[in-house]
Amino acid sequence: MRALLIVAHGSRRKESNEEVRRLAARIKENAGPAFSEVASAFLEISSPQIDSAVADLVKEGAEEIKVFPYFLAAGTHVVDDIPKQIAEAEATYPDVQFELLPHLGGLQGISTLILNQVYHGTPLNPDLAALATD
Amino acid sequence: MRALLIVAHGSRRKESNEEVRRLAARIKENAGPAFSEVASAFLEISSPQIDSAVADLVKEGAEEIKVFPYFLAAGTHVVDDIPKQIAEAEATYPDVQFELLPHLGGLQGISTLILNQVYHGTPLNPDLAALATD
Repeated sequence: MRALLIVAHGSRRKESNEEVRRLAARIKENAGPAFSEVASAFLEISSPQIDSAVADLVKEGAEEIKVFPYFLAAGTHVVDDIPKQIAEAEATYPDVQFELLPHLGGLQGISTLILNQVYHGTPLNPDLAALATD
Repeated sequence: MRALLIVAHGSRRKESNEEVRRLAARIKENAGPAFSEVASAFLEISSPQIDSAVADLVKEGAEEIKVFPYFLAAGTHVVDDIPKQIAEAEATYPDVQFELLPHLGGLQGISTLILNQVYHGTPLNPDLAALATD
């Protein structure tokens, strides 16, 4: 079973953590056969943290876990903290295959996504539009 | 003349601010006739801030400025700070048309971009898949 784990920083603002969970849910909806499960984890403040999110996925039968850092910049969290925690998870679950993906800000498609959005004026996702007004 | 202003938080880590400037440059390269200029501004720590970035764009002849918050979450910066600063810019330049766009985390294409990036199988929706290719 293949799973995707979206790792975000975590915010004191609960709505921001909710945005991450909604993103995971939306990706899961669209994943088709690509991922049996899409979960989220937080480095700080919110929960679950990476170790317990990974434990849950393994309990659910994950044999392959792709880890996606939901960060704009390649700062300490992306370069040091997340790789270190994934290395620990690899040591804990030697039979599970982990793959650390590039962070969001490093994806090639970001500039095209923005350009497309601002040029064609794609509407806001209704879920997030609701969040943005409170 | 139509301009795009990408507003990021600003980081003590210079490389993170450079990432934003490079993103603006990449969007400008791809913008074709959509935008004559693509600039970046920072809320804190780095420069230019919004007011001086807007002043520069107006000096260069911008009649229309679209403002894109390069933020993952709809927190205080996205909901309060940026709208307030854009309202001030509108008061300063009544002949310039400003449009505040949804923030990055609120774009509908984000989940598809991530999914496309992490799964190299059959793309889901070809129209959306096109978003994820730079």
